[in-house]
Amino acid sequence: METLNVALGERSYPIFIGSEGVDQALLAPYIRARQVVVVSNTTVAPLYFERLKDVLPAYDVSSIILPDGEQHKTLEVMDQIYTALLHQRCNRQVTLIALGGGVVGDMCGFAAATYQRGVDFIQLPTTLLAQVDSSVGGKTGVNHALGKNMIGAFYQPQCVVIDTSTLSTLADNQLRAGLAEVIKYGLMQDADFFVWLEQNMAALLNRDEAALMYAIHRSCACKARVVAADEKEAGQRALLNLGHTFGHAIETAMGYGAWLHGEAVAVGMCMAANLSRQQGWLTERAYQRTVALIEAAQLPTQAPREMTVERFLELMSVDKKVMDGQLRLVLLKALGQGVVSHDFSMDLLKETLAAR
Amino acid sequence: METLNVALGERSYPIFIGSEGVDQALLAPYIRARQVVVVSNTTVAPLYFERLKDVLPAYDVSSIILPDGEQHKTLEVMDQIYTALLHQRCNRQVTLIALGGGVVGDMCGFAAATYQRGVDFIQLPTTLLAQVDSSVGGKTGVNHALGKNMIGAFYQPQCVVIDTSTLSTLADNQLRAGLAEVIKYGLMQDADFFVWLEQNMAALLNRDEAALMYAIHRSCACKARVVAADEKEAGQRALLNLGHTFGHAIETAMGYGAWLHGEAVAVGMCMAANLSRQQGWLTERAYQRTVALIEAAQLPTQAPREMTVERFLELMSVDKKVMDGQLRLVLLKALGQGVVSHDFSMDLLKETLAAR
Repeated sequence: METLNVALGERSYPIFIGSEGVDQALLAPYIRARQVVVVSNTTVAPLYFERLKDVLPAYDVSSIILPDGEQHKTLEVMDQIYTALLHQRCNRQVTLIALGGGVVGDMCGFAAATYQRGVDFIQLPTTLLAQVDSSVGGKTGVNHALGKNMIGAFYQPQCVVIDTSTLSTLADNQLRAGLAEVIKYGLMQDADFFVWLEQNMAALLNRDEAALMYAIHRSCACKARVVAADEKEAGQRALLNLGHTFGHAIETAMGYGAWLHGEAVAVGMCMAANLSRQQGWLTERAYQRTVALIEAAQLPTQAPREMTVERFLELMSVDKKVMDGQLRLVLLKALGQGVVSHDFSMDLLKETLAAR
Repeated sequence: METLNVALGERSYPIFIGSEGVDQALLAPYIRARQVVVVSNTTVAPLYFERLKDVLPAYDVSSIILPDGEQHKTLEVMDQIYTALLHQRCNRQVTLIALGGGVVGDMCGFAAATYQRGVDFIQLPTTLLAQVDSSVGGKTGVNHALGKNMIGAFYQPQCVVIDTSTLSTLADNQLRAGLAEVIKYGLMQDADFFVWLEQNMAALLNRDEAALMYAIHRSCACKARVVAADEKEAGQRALLNLGHTFGHAIETAMGYGAWLHGEAVAVGMCMAANLSRQQGWLTERAYQRTVALIEAAQLPTQAPREMTVERFLELMSVDKKVMDGQLRLVLLKALGQGVVSHDFSMDLLKETLAAR
């Protein structure tokens, strides 16, 4: 297994990446006591829960199985997790394990952050999106009807174990959604990786093992670096939100779960690139390459027709990057060079939002 | 105003204690931007919200008014706070102000800990209980039907401002409930203060200003010291839970709000003292003085008749101090000397729970 480190002082933790699965020796140093609760969903648990339980014979392993999908990332389902933890007499020494994609990881992490004022948790991401992005960095939480990820906490896991063999059971649309976040790293701060992605997108879509391993490793290394420098998003971490302000608005407006998060982010990145081009910051050629790469990943590049400019602006006004009433967006000065800026033309933003 | 400091490195903050009320100059250093939201309840807001708004002319001050009472310290009411914050377009620079007692402070603090993954908040406690205990130390959260304070976070305020003049509007039973927590400090680690309380209980019940000021200051100093040494309750902070494991069981079993928290803690301290006596740790005389002081504060000393031993044990089994399935209690080795221990006789505990 390869190991990366998220350097956060006393909250530092390793990311293990491999294709051999997990075993007890790997996880034991990160489990506090006998009590282990695996939080998973109805899709992933039948595939991987028993296997995980079997490799942890030294522990009392139980499970909490959530419904699958972004529409269930709610405070109501969180309450069901709390109830299950209490029924299982879980105490402060319990270790939770998130076994699933981004929704499972975000919710299990928030449950860990808030059950009895905080218990340990481990991330075992099983989707590409969770492996390259959401399992690393400690963003946890749930959605609110009025805005995505509006309730949550920064709360770091004890470790992240990425078992790439789990991608063999991943649906194609989920794989593509994960590629959106991979492309994000290239666009926001790694132009060489962007070029590599242009050359290797077909291999990734074909689930070539070496290509996937390389993309996951490079994405996690980027994420770990940014999070270590700015854990609570006071500055540069906001760059990781490239495409997300637009994307969150789409997810919220269309109803959580109607669009996959990665699909909405893909469209959001096209909109960010388009506004950057109109501002004169990004060349026409760079804009075209951005859209072409997202198309090559078989991801959408256009916002849904039913979304009006007004609806976009309304939902974007509660974005977490808003400061003193002013909207800030992650835009591009070049391929591989994102910036967080409020210095854009509102008219050009409206044109971008209106373009279909 | 007198000032105490809660020494927690970069999370350090002052406690201001006085009777002159708050003004803008005092609060301004602790408010991040223009947006200020006061979280209060239907009892306290009519008395103090307009006055607070008036002294903060440089800010956009709005309010969120909660129903009054422990029975409303729920995830459902938290969701109403989130909704109100989003409707008011609050961003990450917002500062929340908790104006009220323990329930308001715990909920406002948890909202601050979890809204957009964390915003600033200030504690303006208006009950004796909140002034001497719950506003200091960063314990925030809500209750669950299966256990008190089971959902929450450690999240420190920017500052605490104790305006003792607000006690003039406090109901008598609320004053007495606050005295339970004051007595707790004497019992758990300050024998001299216990003696002072024996001598000054009548003055406190008569709302003698100097006596109240002294009791508040000494309680906060104790709390600040313990919290600074052990912010997340890995060790000695658990001593502050003297009487609370029993008390939380009473509150949960009777229905939140039926007993005031301080009333339940008063009974819990009698039970802890009783078990300590039966263990041979506390003298008969010290036990009698404990019960006498709690009676002098006109607080209950007996658990409600309808609570069975089985119900007590069931509810105590999810206590946050349980470790590897083993219940731990705060007991007394002497007046002013609390200990966290699992080394008690289960038979004697059952006798204590059964005694009426």
